[in-house]
Amino acid sequence: MTFVCVPDEETREMVGGIPGLKILTWDGSTPATAEVANTEFLVVSPILPVVSAERFGELTRLRVVQLLSAGFEKWLPVVPANVTICNGRGVHGPSTAELGVALVLSQVRDLPRYARQQVERTWFDGPRTSVCDLNVLVIGAGDIGSRIERSLTALGATVTVMGRTERPGVRPIAEVFTILANQDVVLLSLPLNEQTQGMVNSSFLSQMKDGSILVNVGRGATVVTEDLMAELCSGRLRASLDVTDPEPLPTNHPLWQAPNLVLTPHVGGGSPGWQARAYALIKEQLHRFARGDDLLNVVT
Amino acid sequence: MTFVCVPDEETREMVGGIPGLKILTWDGSTPATAEVANTEFLVVSPILPVVSAERFGELTRLRVVQLLSAGFEKWLPVVPANVTICNGRGVHGPSTAELGVALVLSQVRDLPRYARQQVERTWFDGPRTSVCDLNVLVIGAGDIGSRIERSLTALGATVTVMGRTERPGVRPIAEVFTILANQDVVLLSLPLNEQTQGMVNSSFLSQMKDGSILVNVGRGATVVTEDLMAELCSGRLRASLDVTDPEPLPTNHPLWQAPNLVLTPHVGGGSPGWQARAYALIKEQLHRFARGDDLLNVVT
Repeated sequence: MTFVCVPDEETREMVGGIPGLKILTWDGSTPATAEVANTEFLVVSPILPVVSAERFGELTRLRVVQLLSAGFEKWLPVVPANVTICNGRGVHGPSTAELGVALVLSQVRDLPRYARQQVERTWFDGPRTSVCDLNVLVIGAGDIGSRIERSLTALGATVTVMGRTERPGVRPIAEVFTILANQDVVLLSLPLNEQTQGMVNSSFLSQMKDGSILVNVGRGATVVTEDLMAELCSGRLRASLDVTDPEPLPTNHPLWQAPNLVLTPHVGGGSPGWQARAYALIKEQLHRFARGDDLLNVVT
Repeated sequence: MTFVCVPDEETREMVGGIPGLKILTWDGSTPATAEVANTEFLVVSPILPVVSAERFGELTRLRVVQLLSAGFEKWLPVVPANVTICNGRGVHGPSTAELGVALVLSQVRDLPRYARQQVERTWFDGPRTSVCDLNVLVIGAGDIGSRIERSLTALGATVTVMGRTERPGVRPIAEVFTILANQDVVLLSLPLNEQTQGMVNSSFLSQMKDGSILVNVGRGATVVTEDLMAELCSGRLRASLDVTDPEPLPTNHPLWQAPNLVLTPHVGGGSPGWQARAYALIKEQLHRFARGDDLLNVVT
């Protein structure tokens, strides 16, 4: 019998029975029981604290950790090196992509200005910009980035996608400085790692076009907050951020009052449907695991 | 020689020479000269007043009127019955579709609430909704509606499109009451005509789901303003309107202060790129006309 752990009873019920697997519940907050210590496949919750290295040390037969978030950087220091990590690509992706598109369009179509006009009862249709006349660069070619590409392309935007590795339809991030100056919108949907941490610094920002818009729905620490602050305060760039560094943003942080900024409190994922998508992913992965098939979403 | 009129010199220059056609400029505000009276193909401006029936009477050889707007209802009473009308499908479509998506996402993702939180320096990620968990009904299956469908489908929404005539991927509007009660978002991208005028009245609205969202980027008079006001004031429905009836909305109109409403002042079209798209359409149509080929965008 192969032992599997999921974080709670609801997940266990929703996943149901799978031939050859014994599914236990354990959320990693207490020492592993004798039965849990046999776990070969561990599903962890995106809304509970990261399981400690000590707890992982108790799972001597562990082979796979299944995350339900796209980001996996928090798990790298604690998951033993010989254990495969699969992420939750697709679970939060659609809603995060949607927020990315919402943040782009809100800035491009000047919705905050019309909200002020509505309060003032002013019908003024004034100058307009439209994403169908703009160049959009999406940096990060995962589920989120590719959905954003499809959504904005349908609206007539000229979209370029860049990712870590070159492939059809995806240019390598290493070429970013060859096209950055021509982009009207630069959207970040990147995981946090050594390459991306602090990538959008003063040097990167200085090569962005005057009046262009930076949108971040990936991880806050990809952007150097102080460097972006300077560009927002000078009025040269605009930004929409769903993620910040630090996060949550302390009440006294100057970013709250930065001009030319739309700020949302990391609400890209976690839409009501995420659990149904998570259960479907877990079920699929466990069937694959039980059959010995290749797993989806392997990240390490 | 076949005579063609375009509304201004810039259009004439941008369209350039076309074999077999003599292109004149005339905007319909003055009586036709002897030369203009020969016009067989008339391009009219979307930003000038409608050409009068009297002026049309002077163009005795007229065969085609080319509009640069999607809506054509204003032209029906003045264009002689034997003259073909072609609309500007695709000229304003991308930017109007984009505003439709922006208005849907702004309401669904609660951007106005986050804007208030930003002012208050409050990091509260609270309850969320996401279009990827919702049913969206797009009524109006032209260029605008089909772009909105593609854009929202890429974000994971379940989109149904309805149009005047049934065809693959498009259900007939006559069936609207069979699915209306299950829709979380109802988006109108309809022309104004006898069938659509006042279509969204108290009876229609009463069959919409509690808490659902009405979005209108078509024509204001499709919706009975008073009936919508009642649903907004009771808090049962939310709405985003780029078009209103009347329009522009007078300063003292109660709609300005309706709760649960996002209002923009008819800014769907008219993005900076519309002229380039218009010139390309005119050029294509005139080449077709000169060759005797079928025209694009024939609406009557």
